[in-house]
Amino acid sequence: MKLQNGEKLLFIGDSITDAERQRPDGEGLFQALGKGYVSLVDAFLQASYPELGIRVVNMGTSGNTVRDLEQRWETDVEQRKPDWLSIMIGTNDVWRQFDTPFIREWHVLPDEYEATYRRLVERTLPQVKGLVLMTPFYLEPNPSDAMRKRMEEYGAIVRKLAEEYGTLFVDTQAAFDRVLTHLYAATLAWDRVHPGTAGHMILARTFLGAIGFDWNRG
Amino acid sequence: MKLQNGEKLLFIGDSITDAERQRPDGEGLFQALGKGYVSLVDAFLQASYPELGIRVVNMGTSGNTVRDLEQRWETDVEQRKPDWLSIMIGTNDVWRQFDTPFIREWHVLPDEYEATYRRLVERTLPQVKGLVLMTPFYLEPNPSDAMRKRMEEYGAIVRKLAEEYGTLFVDTQAAFDRVLTHLYAATLAWDRVHPGTAGHMILARTFLGAIGFDWNRG
Amino acid sequence: MKLQNGEKLLFIGDSITDAERQRPDGEGLFQALGKGYVSLVDAFLQASYPELGIRVVNMGTSGNTVRDLEQRWETDVEQRKPDWLSIMIGTNDVWRQFDTPFIREWHVLPDEYEATYRRLVERTLPQVKGLVLMTPFYLEPNPSDAMRKRMEEYGAIVRKLAEEYGTLFVDTQAAFDRVLTHLYAATLAWDRVHPGTAGHMILARTFLGAIGFDWNRG
Amino acid sequence: MKLQNGEKLLFIGDSITDAERQRPDGEGLFQALGKGYVSLVDAFLQASYPELGIRVVNMGTSGNTVRDLEQRWETDVEQRKPDWLSIMIGTNDVWRQFDTPFIREWHVLPDEYEATYRRLVERTLPQVKGLVLMTPFYLEPNPSDAMRKRMEEYGAIVRKLAEEYGTLFVDTQAAFDRVLTHLYAATLAWDRVHPGTAGHMILARTFLGAIGFDWNRG
Amino acid sequence: MKLQNGEKLLFIGDSITDAERQRPDGEGLFQALGKGYVSLVDAFLQASYPELGIRVVNMGTSGNTVRDLEQRWETDVEQRKPDWLSIMIGTNDVWRQFDTPFIREWHVLPDEYEATYRRLVERTLPQVKGLVLMTPFYLEPNPSDAMRKRMEEYGAIVRKLAEEYGTLFVDTQAAFDRVLTHLYAATLAWDRVHPGTAGHMILARTFLGAIGFDWNRG
Amino acid sequence: MKLQNGEKLLFIGDSITDAERQRPDGEGLFQALGKGYVSLVDAFLQASYPELGIRVVNMGTSGNTVRDLEQRWETDVEQRKPDWLSIMIGTNDVWRQFDTPFIREWHVLPDEYEATYRRLVERTLPQVKGLVLMTPFYLEPNPSDAMRKRMEEYGAIVRKLAEEYGTLFVDTQAAFDRVLTHLYAATLAWDRVHPGTAGHMILARTFLGAIGFDWNRG
Amino acid sequence: MKLQNGEKLLFIGDSITDAERQRPDGEGLFQALGKGYVSLVDAFLQASYPELGIRVVNMGTSGNTVRDLEQRWETDVEQRKPDWLSIMIGTNDVWRQFDTPFIREWHVLPDEYEATYRRLVERTLPQVKGLVLMTPFYLEPNPSDAMRKRMEEYGAIVRKLAEEYGTLFVDTQAAFDRVLTHLYAATLAWDRVHPGTAGHMILARTFLGAIGFDWNRG
Amino acid sequence: MKLQNGEKLLFIGDSITDAERQRPDGEGLFQALGKGYVSLVDAFLQASYPELGIRVVNMGTSGNTVRDLEQRWETDVEQRKPDWLSIMIGTNDVWRQFDTPFIREWHVLPDEYEATYRRLVERTLPQVKGLVLMTPFYLEPNPSDAMRKRMEEYGAIVRKLAEEYGTLFVDTQAAFDRVLTHLYAATLAWDRVHPGTAGHMILARTFLGAIGFDWNRG
Repeated sequence: MKLQNGEKLLFIGDSITDAERQRPDGEGLFQALGKGYVSLVDAFLQASYPELGIRVVNMGTSGNTVRDLEQRWETDVEQRKPDWLSIMIGTNDVWRQFDTPFIREWHVLPDEYEATYRRLVERTLPQVKGLVLMTPFYLEPNPSDAMRKRMEEYGAIVRKLAEEYGTLFVDTQAAFDRVLTHLYAATLAWDRVHPGTAGHMILARTFLGAIGFDWNRG
Repeated sequence: MKLQNGEKLLFIGDSITDAERQRPDGEGLFQALGKGYVSLVDAFLQASYPELGIRVVNMGTSGNTVRDLEQRWETDVEQRKPDWLSIMIGTNDVWRQFDTPFIREWHVLPDEYEATYRRLVERTLPQVKGLVLMTPFYLEPNPSDAMRKRMEEYGAIVRKLAEEYGTLFVDTQAAFDRVLTHLYAATLAWDRVHPGTAGHMILARTFLGAIGFDWNRG
Repeated sequence: MKLQNGEKLLFIGDSITDAERQRPDGEGLFQALGKGYVSLVDAFLQASYPELGIRVVNMGTSGNTVRDLEQRWETDVEQRKPDWLSIMIGTNDVWRQFDTPFIREWHVLPDEYEATYRRLVERTLPQVKGLVLMTPFYLEPNPSDAMRKRMEEYGAIVRKLAEEYGTLFVDTQAAFDRVLTHLYAATLAWDRVHPGTAGHMILARTFLGAIGFDWNRG
Repeated sequence: MKLQNGEKLLFIGDSITDAERQRPDGEGLFQALGKGYVSLVDAFLQASYPELGIRVVNMGTSGNTVRDLEQRWETDVEQRKPDWLSIMIGTNDVWRQFDTPFIREWHVLPDEYEATYRRLVERTLPQVKGLVLMTPFYLEPNPSDAMRKRMEEYGAIVRKLAEEYGTLFVDTQAAFDRVLTHLYAATLAWDRVHPGTAGHMILARTFLGAIGFDWNRG
Repeated sequence: MKLQNGEKLLFIGDSITDAERQRPDGEGLFQALGKGYVSLVDAFLQASYPELGIRVVNMGTSGNTVRDLEQRWETDVEQRKPDWLSIMIGTNDVWRQFDTPFIREWHVLPDEYEATYRRLVERTLPQVKGLVLMTPFYLEPNPSDAMRKRMEEYGAIVRKLAEEYGTLFVDTQAAFDRVLTHLYAATLAWDRVHPGTAGHMILARTFLGAIGFDWNRG
Repeated sequence: MKLQNGEKLLFIGDSITDAERQRPDGEGLFQALGKGYVSLVDAFLQASYPELGIRVVNMGTSGNTVRDLEQRWETDVEQRKPDWLSIMIGTNDVWRQFDTPFIREWHVLPDEYEATYRRLVERTLPQVKGLVLMTPFYLEPNPSDAMRKRMEEYGAIVRKLAEEYGTLFVDTQAAFDRVLTHLYAATLAWDRVHPGTAGHMILARTFLGAIGFDWNRG
Repeated sequence: MKLQNGEKLLFIGDSITDAERQRPDGEGLFQALGKGYVSLVDAFLQASYPELGIRVVNMGTSGNTVRDLEQRWETDVEQRKPDWLSIMIGTNDVWRQFDTPFIREWHVLPDEYEATYRRLVERTLPQVKGLVLMTPFYLEPNPSDAMRKRMEEYGAIVRKLAEEYGTLFVDTQAAFDRVLTHLYAATLAWDRVHPGTAGHMILARTFLGAIGFDWNRG
Repeated sequence: MKLQNGEKLLFIGDSITDAERQRPDGEGLFQALGKGYVSLVDAFLQASYPELGIRVVNMGTSGNTVRDLEQRWETDVEQRKPDWLSIMIGTNDVWRQFDTPFIREWHVLPDEYEATYRRLVERTLPQVKGLVLMTPFYLEPNPSDAMRKRMEEYGAIVRKLAEEYGTLFVDTQAAFDRVLTHLYAATLAWDRVHPGTAGHMILARTFLGAIGFDWNRG
């Protein structure tokens, strides 16, 4: 387990991270962490590593793109001084290109996505013990689907940045693809974007694998 | 225009037909016809053929399969004595096979679908002036998608029945496919099943074409 | 079709345009365009001209008079830089003279209406590719009704301005009058002002006629 | 004043009488009489004739036609044993012919209206001290308006029955027409059917005039 | 009738005047005048003097004392430039002395009441055509009841001011006392302060008497 | 203390007893006993005599008269087999004579009140260990007030029955009168009937005095 | 893994099982399984064994005791024909003895608990492939706490029955006790009964361990 | 009785004091004092000492620690100029250490608690006639429970300050402990912190004992 006693782990991202978390602060009592993978990660940590006292904070915000993350990075990430930071962003950067194709100023294209993401990683690396970059994903198994292909471009950017800067990396798309060989996409998510509990479980377990969670504990 | 003065046109189907229609009777004042293609058909008829006084009734019910239609056929279709009847059913018959694959009693397989649909057509034909059979559809352009292929099987059954019994026929899937060459599926429907206003406009115009609506009037 | 690839079409007006549109921006996902003729125009364009990618924006506001339009013209029209602009205003300018006759500062009389409308047209003409002026209307067929006569005065002002400045012109009152020879006013609107779906269909089709929509497409 | 000490005065009718009265019994505490002319009549009687202790009951029901009245006559009128009964019905009998012209079974035509009304008067006359027949009305001053002419037919039937059976008679249309020479219809009612407080005041005062209310008391 | 064509009549006071009026402006469409005596006065004027076009405005505010009135006098009275002003205040000035006797800063004692009221009358007299001073009242017939006696003190102050400054005067307590000889207080008001429709009718008719309303019109 | 270990104490009455108790059973968790004197009695017993385990049940029902009590006596009292029963009824029997004087069938006059009350006492006495009869009360100190005098008649009937049958007796009116010499009625209750917490405290303490509560415990 | 392809796994119990599941059937789309350990079990199975197609059904009902389970056993368990059945019951059987100690008919004492539980196991064993008995638990680490000791008695009965009938057994109390050595009870549950997500994770993982879940998959 | 005629008694504290009091000012009509011990204290004073006219004010705020009290001390205590002040604080200072152990900045440790509390007492003593310090409490009878022990530390600090500064002192924990020997903690409070009415009665009576309330009055 890479996390140590009393460390703070902060998650930032879009609606998949948000999952109805409490506001303004995404931590505290009574489902403050929302109903998604962040809450599951916290539950796993408390159940299996209660002695570590890991503090989990959820700062996801529905509808966000990487452009929105940069705008609130100081208040929502830096001022909270996390020891570990997990980023999962890109869904809306891509989705708006497909569900509102005519509103072009809502689209965050690959160049802007990479440049912005890179700025965030660079300014944050010196401030944390560890960084986890999670790819965005799309629950569409057809490799020639236009939006699937576009999402893979963004996932490749995340992978490239993780390699360049030596951070931890979570390939969420690959994790989902294993299940999509057995289950139709609509079983996991009504809109191919927002998964149900099974999908959040996949995200949580993949994340925990990356930070060295021991499944034989607790 | 095939419909004549003072005739009653009844629509039956699932949530796409229902579209929040009034209950128990799907006609009357203030959006009694719902927010979907049925309401648009009625608007076109009133705007372009006000002198005909066509009476439109919406008896769609969300979640229905052809199995459900048969159960309420006497009260919701026959007792209302329509002159014209339009049927669009099959979405849920297919969808449940993909979004709740483990609950098998919710699945209406092709054999049951065809047999039930046939019984409904046979008992109704002698009672009406005209019957319009509309295929179910799925807003997924990938021809090898499992659910798309399944939906086409059901559409083919509708086409076969229309030909056998000589009814009017509306190929909704074909109408959508023309638009899907230009717009990504998510532009038209968040779940590839329930279209927005543009999709309902496509349904309404395709239906009206089948009954001989003259676009140069009004 | 006068509109070309990728152009933005903005509608401004009162409650008939507004029709429960999204706020603050009248565009985007999930009925952002409201439930009225603007949404129908957008649906027709997407269904028949999907390859053009026309971007439709609804900035109607319930209760507005031309005096209100001028106050928000910079933020709600000019800063959004539409290629095409459609204006339908005047209902409340007239109605307040009849439903609250004693509150005289709510009345926008013909002189103020024309002067204000003229200022808006003049400052906007250089900024857009095309302008569509739609008359206000009243669903009362009796030619000697006091409010009907007053509304026609305002409609005549709109026609005069359209001719003077060479803009496109939509005579909504004339379009409704054709249907009112067959249907009683209360069939179309409970208050003779806010039409149901049939009335909005009339508005949408009349508007589309003015911009050269081809009914034999799609 | 025709009413005497301790008598019960019951009103029956449609939404104009109902006016959000309490259910199931239209009497008691806290606005049990609704917000319309019945409540005003009661207020006048309590304010000017408190010593009489007149008991006012409101059994109006929104949407009713004379056909509906007959169905609930035994429970809602006869079993309550009023000393005086006031009837105002006919609005919906006529209105449905104009706002939902295609749903013909909702229309109560003049012959049915007169025959039903006559049956109600004949069976009730022996049971009460006095009967007040109020005409239905339409707040449209144009004498050639189709619905106005139709409403006058129904008013004439009420007048004829009042004369035949020697009951009290209230010509509500005439009372409104005096005001309509000064105020536009929309000032009194947004739909020309449901008046605001001023219209209910006209109804109440006209009714009270018919039963001999002394305006110089109280 | 003292009021003339096109004049504006403004009412100010506490919850009895307020009666759920619209905010911020107590005039306009759809029960903007509330459910109390102000709405009834307006209804009487429209029904009997429609040709005068009297504009009625309700600026009552629940819970107010004369101290509160003075604070909002400029915005809520003077800036609205009424031709006629009616004031009914004092209920809460007295009531707080009895229902929250220990919170002494809520009590407006007679000296402050008179001084403040006098300032309001003096500054307003030059600005209006007429002023109507209505006493506060208490629906308790027992002359030795402590709160009744206190309320009469305040009523006497209003009478004295009306006489000194030659304004119109309405003795609401006297009007209620006539009815209270026949009806128990609880019949008129559950808390002896807020009357039902009958009580508001008494207030409206007494007010109208003071301004010369002709009961034989309309 | 007259109550012994494990006994059940049931309260029946009108809205003053009810006080928003839980339904259908007036006992259990989370304010099941309502917000009135019954809940306070229970709190006193738990706080001072926790070792006794007295079970308190509230079966009060708003609006009830003694006539209503008799109708539900079997299910709401007898089937619950209380050891001790407390009755406080009569408020509505009297109040309806004053707030709805014209609806005479709602009035329970003294003869009916006494006869019904007597039947209830006689059938219940053999089934319980103890019976507590509490008078109804009216928070009006004026001895010549009509409703106060009427309420005293009913209180006298309760006293007479308590003496005849040798039950415990609580003179609630006398308890309130002591406080009313210092506080105006409106301080205790906005309608002179439903007291606030102070009034319920008076009821609870007077009741507890009658069953021998020791104030020096706990 | 003991469960095989296409089998149905049904959970029955009280509020901890219920967790806001859908009604009447606890399966289907959109959080039909509630927010508790049942939903987590289903998520683990779908994520790690998607090829098995295990069908999970939640029939928990808040507030239930074993007495309530027996009453609905036929409809809620037997008619649904599960292959595997999991039972967790006893919390309320015990809790009512402590939070409503005076309402003795709500208490299910150990003898009744064991006898009823035994009847359910005996009639169900022949109908299923496997039975999982989960103990009730109490999140109180103090071994001398009265309710904790009582809960352990009930847990011991469950263990005894599991051994006698050779079913699978889950000691939930032991699983929680391991975590309670590190975390105070209030961290896991505000009332020591209803855990948050971490507590449900402990239940889910302990249950899955009993049926042979392989943590190294997925 | 230590309080004298017309004095103001202000309570400050956390949710146990707050108990849904009115905002912003915790005094006035209609349950302005909330549903807890403050309202009961007021009720006792009004019922037994109505002639004193004690003014009770509740300024409790849910979730507060002593750190929060200091921040609002000037506006919520000093500017209101109470004659007597009662303080009960510490529950949340302790609780956060146990229910959110990982969010350490929410914890108010003993040193900060004592120092802050001391500052508040010192600055307030010169401004009031009397000060009542009430200990925080925890409804857990097990003396070795970690949170119980911690709460006793804070209670000991309160006792020490009361002795040092010679204020009145209320040992709420001791008062509860007497009842906890007979009733299980869950009978008094679902979370061992927020008591029901019985617990608030214990607090109110213990407080009143400290200020010399005479239980034989009223």
